[in-house]
Amino acid sequence: MSSSADFYQSLPVRPAVTKQTQPHPLAALSASEISATSQLIKSSWPPRTDLHFKVITLEEPAKAETVPFLKAEHHGLTPVPIARKAFVNYYIRDTDKFHEAIVNLSTRQVERNVRLGANVHSNGDAEEIVEIERVARDDPQVQAAIAKLQLPEGTVVISDPWIYGSDGVNDDDRMYQCFLYMRDPANPLEADSNHYALPLPISPVISVVEKKVIRVDILPTGADATVGELKPYSYRPPNEYIPEAQDLRTDVKPLHISQPEGASFSVTDQGQSSIIEWQKWSFRVGFNQREGMVIYDVRYDDRNLFYRLSLSDMNIPYADPRAPYHKKSAFDLGDVGAGLMANNLKLGCDCLGSIHYLDSVLANDKGEPIPMDNVICIHEQDAGIGWKHTNYRTGRAAVVRNRELVLQTIITVSNYEYILAFLFNQAGEMTYEVRATGILSTQPIDDGVDVSFGTRVHPGVLAVHHQHIFSLRVDPSIDSHTSNRVVYDEAHAMPRSSFNPHGTGYEVRETVIEHSGGYDLSPDNNRIFKIQNAGVRNAVNGKPVAYKIHAPPFQKMLADKDSFNHKRAEFADHNIYVVRHRDDELFAGGKYTNQSRGGTGVRAWADRREDVVDQDVVVFVQFGINHIPRVEDFPVMPCEVLKVGFKPVNFFERNPALDVPPSSQGANCSVLLSEEKDAGEGAMEGCCGEKSKL
Amino acid sequence: MSSSADFYQSLPVRPAVTKQTQPHPLAALSASEISATSQLIKSSWPPRTDLHFKVITLEEPAKAETVPFLKAEHHGLTPVPIARKAFVNYYIRDTDKFHEAIVNLSTRQVERNVRLGANVHSNGDAEEIVEIERVARDDPQVQAAIAKLQLPEGTVVISDPWIYGSDGVNDDDRMYQCFLYMRDPANPLEADSNHYALPLPISPVISVVEKKVIRVDILPTGADATVGELKPYSYRPPNEYIPEAQDLRTDVKPLHISQPEGASFSVTDQGQSSIIEWQKWSFRVGFNQREGMVIYDVRYDDRNLFYRLSLSDMNIPYADPRAPYHKKSAFDLGDVGAGLMANNLKLGCDCLGSIHYLDSVLANDKGEPIPMDNVICIHEQDAGIGWKHTNYRTGRAAVVRNRELVLQTIITVSNYEYILAFLFNQAGEMTYEVRATGILSTQPIDDGVDVSFGTRVHPGVLAVHHQHIFSLRVDPSIDSHTSNRVVYDEAHAMPRSSFNPHGTGYEVRETVIEHSGGYDLSPDNNRIFKIQNAGVRNAVNGKPVAYKIHAPPFQKMLADKDSFNHKRAEFADHNIYVVRHRDDELFAGGKYTNQSRGGTGVRAWADRREDVVDQDVVVFVQFGINHIPRVEDFPVMPCEVLKVGFKPVNFFERNPALDVPPSSQGANCSVLLSEEKDAGEGAMEGCCGEKSKL
Repeated sequence: MSSSADFYQSLPVRPAVTKQTQPHPLAALSASEISATSQLIKSSWPPRTDLHFKVITLEEPAKAETVPFLKAEHHGLTPVPIARKAFVNYYIRDTDKFHEAIVNLSTRQVERNVRLGANVHSNGDAEEIVEIERVARDDPQVQAAIAKLQLPEGTVVISDPWIYGSDGVNDDDRMYQCFLYMRDPANPLEADSNHYALPLPISPVISVVEKKVIRVDILPTGADATVGELKPYSYRPPNEYIPEAQDLRTDVKPLHISQPEGASFSVTDQGQSSIIEWQKWSFRVGFNQREGMVIYDVRYDDRNLFYRLSLSDMNIPYADPRAPYHKKSAFDLGDVGAGLMANNLKLGCDCLGSIHYLDSVLANDKGEPIPMDNVICIHEQDAGIGWKHTNYRTGRAAVVRNRELVLQTIITVSNYEYILAFLFNQAGEMTYEVRATGILSTQPIDDGVDVSFGTRVHPGVLAVHHQHIFSLRVDPSIDSHTSNRVVYDEAHAMPRSSFNPHGTGYEVRETVIEHSGGYDLSPDNNRIFKIQNAGVRNAVNGKPVAYKIHAPPFQKMLADKDSFNHKRAEFADHNIYVVRHRDDELFAGGKYTNQSRGGTGVRAWADRREDVVDQDVVVFVQFGINHIPRVEDFPVMPCEVLKVGFKPVNFFERNPALDVPPSSQGANCSVLLSEEKDAGEGAMEGCCGEKSKL
Repeated sequence: MSSSADFYQSLPVRPAVTKQTQPHPLAALSASEISATSQLIKSSWPPRTDLHFKVITLEEPAKAETVPFLKAEHHGLTPVPIARKAFVNYYIRDTDKFHEAIVNLSTRQVERNVRLGANVHSNGDAEEIVEIERVARDDPQVQAAIAKLQLPEGTVVISDPWIYGSDGVNDDDRMYQCFLYMRDPANPLEADSNHYALPLPISPVISVVEKKVIRVDILPTGADATVGELKPYSYRPPNEYIPEAQDLRTDVKPLHISQPEGASFSVTDQGQSSIIEWQKWSFRVGFNQREGMVIYDVRYDDRNLFYRLSLSDMNIPYADPRAPYHKKSAFDLGDVGAGLMANNLKLGCDCLGSIHYLDSVLANDKGEPIPMDNVICIHEQDAGIGWKHTNYRTGRAAVVRNRELVLQTIITVSNYEYILAFLFNQAGEMTYEVRATGILSTQPIDDGVDVSFGTRVHPGVLAVHHQHIFSLRVDPSIDSHTSNRVVYDEAHAMPRSSFNPHGTGYEVRETVIEHSGGYDLSPDNNRIFKIQNAGVRNAVNGKPVAYKIHAPPFQKMLADKDSFNHKRAEFADHNIYVVRHRDDELFAGGKYTNQSRGGTGVRAWADRREDVVDQDVVVFVQFGINHIPRVEDFPVMPCEVLKVGFKPVNFFERNPALDVPPSSQGANCSVLLSEEKDAGEGAMEGCCGEKSKL
């Protein structure tokens, strides 16, 4: 790795084999397509009509068109071209006139352009959120309320706009509920001061259409719902997370990960999507405003596994039943967008080792393209031993390491962060990983008060319990795009009999899911869901090929069934939803979650009770945590890691990682940290021999 | 890292500060102590009495003595010396006269030396297992049975001795049940041929006292319990796991982990134990025949957390109810010993990076010390992002990586492997990780037969379902060695009321465990067990300091309550057992598990129904998998990973990882895999600048 020449030899980026005459059907919209889309929409209105664009994103082609396209591609044939289309949401600016449109970019026609009905609202966007902050801050009523707190001279107040939520009480119009905080008054110029450590009991409500404060809620700060007069501020200590505010530990020695021969994966860019090939895996990566990273056309050794994978939505309902907190229930994808909130992942900070970044492009509120750089990082990592066996008779150990490919994106949802990753390994396994981190959403609490629905994490600061309920959308194609089924296995004790005279026997029973619906885990029965292709049998044992789903159990939504929280989060009540595929059913909580009323998400689709046996099925996998805050989660929380695994079950004919080369010191170049021992087996030689060449 | 001088500068091994006049009370027995012990036992018998030693291990001093010793140590005082004692199990060789003895090495006296009663049997040992293999192989009845199979000329038959198990039917004497396999007849000289791919239907039963075959069981190979005549062998393909039998993939590029300034941990050896210090953690590592790796005296920033941590036992009951398979139920620690089965971990194969190894010494059947080299490896690893927050207003990201310290040991239990590790991180969290790998225990099955209790993983090969149920013993000392309690939290919906008018509120309720007993998880209630010190309160919120236990739910033992399997595996029926500490209660399945009858393990101790509130409590945490074999698990299975986490809950006053230095390219030296992008922010310079010095 001494010269850049060596370095660039091992680049994973391949030029596309054939020049793309038009973008791949699954590629996200390019900057020029975004511009063309907004122009076409604007031209459908009288000149100078001011439009506020909310979403300009790829309208993915129908699966019925795309699957033949992919098949032709994989067979080296020329696919039938598919029209490029854009999906658009917009308002007539500063009105409640919310529209949904489809633009055909191939014909340059607006194919659909309709105003949506009552109680359908758009997501927030970056420009709007900044504007709402300003409105809240500048409002005289709000300033009058703040004045009553008698904050120290020069105190900076911060307003965090929150999605208003729904409770059915005077909430037909689109609003924001802002929560106010202050920076450490002793350090008011520190823009990265942790204002969540200093919450204020004032919460303005803002009309989005009018861009004005329509109400100022005073927050309950005791054990009950009583709201008193605003009292003068009394001193609270700050609680900063930025490194310069810490006495940093000095005993962490550097740890470097290097790949002297480059990475094992390749990236073929095709417009706004990239084909990744790695260790028999191949798939396409896309990125959009709503879901962020999307994985398409996942194949292993030229066999189809998944047509499309994405985080569909997440819901975070809070436990405090008191107004206005009872409405705190965010859909971070539907209400804002995982793509829009994606971090620019800087080299060396968010990944370690040899990294490739993918860029994307989204649209702003004017319909202009905005570059989104480094939104996905791709790298390999060592995940410990992959498999091992030692023959105790000969003492010979056969051992391989488990190399993983990681595609990671990180989103910031105001206070919280989610680190979202797809991981692939050499044993044909795929994992979706979520790391929840960032800062707790906080609210003021009086001294000496304890409540059962939250934890005091700092003087005067309550972090309320909340659930994070994620829904991963899995559109499988296990050896077929059109004929998969979902089954579950359970293990049951055999009754005593002449066959089982000692009461030790047990057996596995398989149940086929026949109708669309919500289904649950049952750890006591070892219930395991599998996505199966009953038409393709394993050559060794004749069982249907399948992938099983390893999802951790979690507590389902606690809000009661009549609550708006429950009605809206249509995925939050079951571990698994199984439905028949429909092109427009991507989002488990419904297409429009902001101030939604329910009835438009996966629960509604499942209620069709369709036959899902040997059909084009889609599985929504739910998982989550009930976050009961600890003091240790403040001022920034250590990552809480959740994983959903997909593993082959009788899909291959033997361990697919059997052909991974053995773990050897020659390849691994480990270092012995001891003068008392021989390095042994040429350990230092093999490694240092290589290293001395660097 | 260019010279060995640089390299050795960063060695983690420290000389002990003071010369140890005698071993630390928690240090394992030294070679000379082992020799002295066996000599003292031998001298208690007439000359030329041939003893078969089974166990010679440290008899750990009473906690009542050790805790004051540790306290004195931690305060820099001279502790009161504690007598060194050895625990011994032995037989009068080739008899059933099984003894338990305590030898006081300080006074050189045998303090206790008793013959144990009926139905108490020792573990197997390495020499005995080899001898049993030979007995089975050489027996004329066995050879006559093998002859009926008409195996190809030169076929090598392998005999795997199995612990006999218990069913109460003529099993008072100690026996082995051997399972026979053959090497690939086309390759009979390959000592590492995977004989588990070629099981034979013959199973000799051997008397340990007589060292002879007392019965040859013919195995059922159909769907029912019928046992037919032995039939001539018909061809079966081999299924090898060794790399030279594979067409190895060639596209895995090397991945190196290096620590150019050395490791961040230090090791202070004190006889047969070592003090590890790393990132505010300190603890002592020991190693013994039964449990293998043991962690003592775990402290964080000079606060006590755990007195002792070890894998207590594991049980693996199989699902096939037919004789003799119904007895297949192994206790891998009690029946053999995790220490005895520990692998020698070779540099570069089992760990990656900068590694320190610990050696140990155990005893053989003659009471002689045998060196056990490299039985534990210690290294640091990068575990991704530790925490992150991006201020969306300024765009500034604060991010740290999560460094972990790993102590790993690997055991081979005949066909299976377990990779066992304690992991510590910078957020005060500890994890116990098990990776199950190795080869399935197989048996012959007729062509075309499917059974509900196993999976055909290869032509003629059945892998029977089986449970792996682990019991981790946790002796906590959360800010006190004598006053901890175990509680559990649950989250419950609040009923609708004027306080909760929208049905969205929920609350956490804590339940104190008052009596020793078995307790279970309840994911639907988000039940979380915590080990708490009610006498020490968090300065921020006044809550008792605690560590919570994150254990995954698992299916408890399926064998019915009247079965021997259930009676013997006393830990297998509950997620958690809470008991009062007693010095001699280390092993959840009882001290003597081989052909045990139950009544001597944690269920029996819990049945005392002792008060466990603010006492010296011990927690046994159970976890496991019900392994329903897949074809992909053969001929060697990809690791199945299980984790049990321990996390602080209101133990610290803020995120304990807040002082981890920020993740920076300067420290991480990552490499950009793209010519299309600028490296940016001095990325290449910072890193390559350093590297060019190497």
